[in-house]
Amino acid sequence: MESWPPGGSGPAEAGPRLRGLRGADLAASASLLSRAGAEAGCSAPAVAAVLPAGGSGERMGVSTPKQFCPILERPLISYTLQALERVSWIKDIVVAVTGEHMEAMKCIIQRYQHKGISLVESGVTRHRSIFNGLKALAEDQPNCRLSKPEVVIIHDAVRPFVEEDVLLKVVTAAKEHGAAGAIRPLVSTVISPSVDGCLDHSLERARHRASEMPQAFLFDVIYEAYQQCSDYDLEFGTECLHLALKYCHIKAKLIEGSPDLWKVTYKRDLYAAESIIKERISQQICVVTDAKEDEEHVGHRLEEMLKNELNHVKVTSGRDLQQIILEKCYNFVCVNVMTSDFEETQQLLNMLEESNLSILYPVVVISDEQKLQESLRQGATIIAALIKERNSGLIGQLLVA
Amino acid sequence: MESWPPGGSGPAEAGPRLRGLRGADLAASASLLSRAGAEAGCSAPAVAAVLPAGGSGERMGVSTPKQFCPILERPLISYTLQALERVSWIKDIVVAVTGEHMEAMKCIIQRYQHKGISLVESGVTRHRSIFNGLKALAEDQPNCRLSKPEVVIIHDAVRPFVEEDVLLKVVTAAKEHGAAGAIRPLVSTVISPSVDGCLDHSLERARHRASEMPQAFLFDVIYEAYQQCSDYDLEFGTECLHLALKYCHIKAKLIEGSPDLWKVTYKRDLYAAESIIKERISQQICVVTDAKEDEEHVGHRLEEMLKNELNHVKVTSGRDLQQIILEKCYNFVCVNVMTSDFEETQQLLNMLEESNLSILYPVVVISDEQKLQESLRQGATIIAALIKERNSGLIGQLLVA
Repeated sequence: MESWPPGGSGPAEAGPRLRGLRGADLAASASLLSRAGAEAGCSAPAVAAVLPAGGSGERMGVSTPKQFCPILERPLISYTLQALERVSWIKDIVVAVTGEHMEAMKCIIQRYQHKGISLVESGVTRHRSIFNGLKALAEDQPNCRLSKPEVVIIHDAVRPFVEEDVLLKVVTAAKEHGAAGAIRPLVSTVISPSVDGCLDHSLERARHRASEMPQAFLFDVIYEAYQQCSDYDLEFGTECLHLALKYCHIKAKLIEGSPDLWKVTYKRDLYAAESIIKERISQQICVVTDAKEDEEHVGHRLEEMLKNELNHVKVTSGRDLQQIILEKCYNFVCVNVMTSDFEETQQLLNMLEESNLSILYPVVVISDEQKLQESLRQGATIIAALIKERNSGLIGQLLVA
Repeated sequence: MESWPPGGSGPAEAGPRLRGLRGADLAASASLLSRAGAEAGCSAPAVAAVLPAGGSGERMGVSTPKQFCPILERPLISYTLQALERVSWIKDIVVAVTGEHMEAMKCIIQRYQHKGISLVESGVTRHRSIFNGLKALAEDQPNCRLSKPEVVIIHDAVRPFVEEDVLLKVVTAAKEHGAAGAIRPLVSTVISPSVDGCLDHSLERARHRASEMPQAFLFDVIYEAYQQCSDYDLEFGTECLHLALKYCHIKAKLIEGSPDLWKVTYKRDLYAAESIIKERISQQICVVTDAKEDEEHVGHRLEEMLKNELNHVKVTSGRDLQQIILEKCYNFVCVNVMTSDFEETQQLLNMLEESNLSILYPVVVISDEQKLQESLRQGATIIAALIKERNSGLIGQLLVA
């Protein structure tokens, strides 16, 4: 089992790391957990996660279920898995998918090198899918490599931007209270219609919250609740916190979450997710050059120009491409000074191809240094536009600054 | 007063028409209205709209209030005004803005040639702003060019994609029931926290709805409700339908709306709105050429290529640029066959500049016919990428296919 409380995320990541963790927040939470644990005489809990991913995505208005919709050519669920698996103290992740999508899901796990994932068949409703995931984690299942965790996180496959800090908060609260869930303020007032389609009453917005994900439970609590709950609950219910309350009398602790927790529900949410991912992976550029390091050459001047074009951009120059790829840099500019045989560029392309990671349109710009000298500013503008938009239509095109 | 029931939107529009109206739906609604009107002996109602736009946008996390945030360089509220003013039977639109933003709002109205807009100062809360808008419409106000409508629509400045059909439905229902509002299914379960931050109870999702905008009221009903309502209501209330129920005993008719009604609330919603607008204005391209109409030239072949690149694209070739600009085409490709002095292109640029409309990065591609012949497919790919992304960084750049 990994160390607990955590000091940060694990060293090796299968997918792109889209955002740095907020170290100070995490340290504070971890410290609180340690204190609470010491007072109660508790040890670090074993944590697993269950992701129901059997939905049809009918609200999206497209035939592909939303969790499998591509964002920059990578399925949405893969981003969510990556967000969970980068958290070192989550030991197992159980994903519930339909039989129809089982093979596709296996391909996604292989393609994006996801680790520690177990697949179970989903049920016809969300609650039945979660129940199937919990059953797989329960110790009494035969031929199962999974072991029963102390705490289980339940998250949605379509909430890809979940951060480690909120996961830590719900797990910590679940250990103390038995159940915990993230909440958000209501965006719209909630009303109750009468049978004739007219307003019966409206709810006071300030007294209510939207129940979001992630949620976490002591495993025994939520498994007990699912075992006891009625067919009606399993068919028509939507809220795990409600089951814990109804069948185990556990009042879940509610944790105020950030806007990042939103659920991809409609087509517009896919647009938003794509823009957020584009923005996050545009923050670092690697300028690859065959010039000597102390040489005053066009690569260095280009770096300065690019810093003007892109906010908060970190320009790294270096020859250790393997390391840079491991550090999840998605933007490369190759400047050939010494030779014109594109050796460095070809080496980079090979390495990207071999890495077999999701590389989300890596932008490889091959520049003729002589020409670039003449129009450096336009060159930087074009490069910045390519990096920001990542439009596949411009891949392979010759663009002259 | 404009004709009622409407057959469609008005002929002249100040802003871009982002989407065609659903003619069949509108005709059906209008027919229902006529029948209801005939049975009840009613005539067409005079309709005005009130837009509270005094919010600070604190949930957005940016200093600019969200209704003034630019999308493709045009403020969000301008898209919403355009969506309302293209509806011929909405006579007046009253916008409530803070004193601080009054001048900026006047500039927006002038810049985007909005018509029929009156400005009032907003209150410190949403309800107070709406009340100020209603007061301006009430007949007893001195020195006011506005007249009291029979039905008033209340809409949000940050819901730019409202369609004529839902506006017609709420107005029709308001005339019959006294009040009506659009609703949507809940995305998340709604819960009620206890004072200690734990779950008190959760609401059954299927029995509740999110109350959205637009809403419509018989003017006398909602004005009476606002005149009677308490300071507490004005300070902490959020729901106009609730005021009509509480003070006038009117049970509002609830209308199922489309996903388009969503409210721009968070930064991700701005991303989504931008993507939707980009998609909508990429559906039509005008290829401008100085070649003879019956001539088999590169312009015609380029049209075919572009049809492959862009979904549902309508390619129009023509010399009547003024008419094409009026019809809200936002994408122009100039192909010079006869001359190389770019006369047609300059004429187009002048016309776009003089039109002083929001042109959202018009994409003007000047092609050298000889070169384009050699690489037509790449040329079409680059053009399609430019039109889809509208990245300002590529404006003015020479891109060689």
